[in-house]
Amino acid sequence: MEKGRVLLSVTGFHPQRWHELLSAEREVVTEPAGTSDPSIAYAVVWKHKPNLLAGLPNLRAIFSIGAGVDHIFNDPGLPDVPIVKVVADNLTQYMTEYVVWRVLDHHRQGALYRQQQQKKTWHEPQQRPAGDISVGIMGLGTLGRAAASVLLSLGFCVNGWSRTSHPMDGATGYVGDSGLIPFLNATDILVVLLPLTPTTRGIVNYGLLKELRRRNGLGGAVLINAGRGRLQKDDDILRALDEGILKEASLDVFEVEPLPKTSPLWSHPKVYVTPHAAATSDPNHLVPIMLAQMAAFERGEPLQNTVDRSAGY
Amino acid sequence: MEKGRVLLSVTGFHPQRWHELLSAEREVVTEPAGTSDPSIAYAVVWKHKPNLLAGLPNLRAIFSIGAGVDHIFNDPGLPDVPIVKVVADNLTQYMTEYVVWRVLDHHRQGALYRQQQQKKTWHEPQQRPAGDISVGIMGLGTLGRAAASVLLSLGFCVNGWSRTSHPMDGATGYVGDSGLIPFLNATDILVVLLPLTPTTRGIVNYGLLKELRRRNGLGGAVLINAGRGRLQKDDDILRALDEGILKEASLDVFEVEPLPKTSPLWSHPKVYVTPHAAATSDPNHLVPIMLAQMAAFERGEPLQNTVDRSAGY
Repeated sequence: MEKGRVLLSVTGFHPQRWHELLSAEREVVTEPAGTSDPSIAYAVVWKHKPNLLAGLPNLRAIFSIGAGVDHIFNDPGLPDVPIVKVVADNLTQYMTEYVVWRVLDHHRQGALYRQQQQKKTWHEPQQRPAGDISVGIMGLGTLGRAAASVLLSLGFCVNGWSRTSHPMDGATGYVGDSGLIPFLNATDILVVLLPLTPTTRGIVNYGLLKELRRRNGLGGAVLINAGRGRLQKDDDILRALDEGILKEASLDVFEVEPLPKTSPLWSHPKVYVTPHAAATSDPNHLVPIMLAQMAAFERGEPLQNTVDRSAGY
Repeated sequence: MEKGRVLLSVTGFHPQRWHELLSAEREVVTEPAGTSDPSIAYAVVWKHKPNLLAGLPNLRAIFSIGAGVDHIFNDPGLPDVPIVKVVADNLTQYMTEYVVWRVLDHHRQGALYRQQQQKKTWHEPQQRPAGDISVGIMGLGTLGRAAASVLLSLGFCVNGWSRTSHPMDGATGYVGDSGLIPFLNATDILVVLLPLTPTTRGIVNYGLLKELRRRNGLGGAVLINAGRGRLQKDDDILRALDEGILKEASLDVFEVEPLPKTSPLWSHPKVYVTPHAAATSDPNHLVPIMLAQMAAFERGEPLQNTVDRSAGY
């Protein structure tokens, strides 16, 4: 099989480095030569233009830049070829860093210590041990399991919730619709790492948040969303904060990104905002993995980490 | 052997809970009946009064509240009986949480994100992966090794420096005086967990800090001291920050505690102050360990975790 050409289609950022690295091994174009360009074998995409891929007769696979693939399913003219998710140690490590950092900043009362420092107050607050706190992770794929593993090594109790069963040593698993309420009722710090699908859209709403465990002395539950913005209802998070259901929240993603200047989340004293920066898709790490997959595929090997279209991830 | 009485001697906090828990199994007094009280078998102490223990004829062991024992050696009339360090999973976990929390807050640019949020700025800065960063831990006892283990699982490179060799899988070890400069030259984030002894007093000074690695794009090294305040020179840390040798510092301990309101560390924009709160000595966890040691000793078993007086820890 000859070396297939690559169509690189990206909106929202300049893919110069991706282009350079892909070009080291393959011919790369950023626009097809007409809607039925026969020379394109692979598409490497982030929020590509709708219907761009529909007429390409020799397209063999679509590679997603970034861990989520919801941006690909926004295309109503998506052709029926395999979609490959990027799975990279690098991306997993970044996400684990973010999750552990935010869990510890809430657990170790970072906001309180920063306030005390401003007032030059020397006071040691009550501090629970990690073993008294349950972190609940929604989504137990590669990212969720990696974060769970480090949280367990820190001594936290870990609950996991997923659509299908993903048993994990040391963690308590909850599965499907019937497992959701029991999972939330046993969770103090909720970490959202779900894929965005028609089923999960808006799942982090007021009704869900009010099921989180609230215990004496902890002053409300904590929400950390590092998945996708449209999993959550921004207004419901604000309501849960203002009613004391949530004590604090760390949000890396939002219904609309960039987060509009008018959003009250920016200045809410209990919200910690990062600009969709939890896990950077670094082309230096991801492009070699994509190129290796293309070469293996052309040697007759199967593609790895392909998307299950019925599940949407 | 009969159940020995316990002398509980503490300054700086009210040991009510310690008294209650120790009393569950043994007779406890807070003052000896005269300087040569023959009834005292054990002393449980935190910064006890000098010469308090010198004349007790039947004292068998001294138990330290807290991981460090330097407060005991401040007593010029310290009798020659075994000194027992507290080693507890609980204390180790608290310290690991603190170290990992502070390493991640510096590594993941917490201060920058907090500033950006105040200005409602949506901007993703460059982020290095953990594998590009070396965390150097001074002191590889129980606490240092536990923190190193979690940092390794997060993907950081870990260097360790200790007085005697403590090899550890995955970490690069440096030993003794001759190993100190090479250790510092290979370290981006310095974590101090040393015991305070005549040899280590003031070791974290300007001369040491200026040997830390400074690399393009990282903007200075980072210091985290969770050991003892008198390991460091507060003024030298300020100088290193102002000269750009240090980018940021997290300090849980200080030359004088509580940190005086007049200290410029309180309001320095690159310093993160916590009030000697990294690892709480929780009597609920520590007293049962002490009582079990006393009972085992009276059955003829040796004391565990005793201090090497020549090393001072």
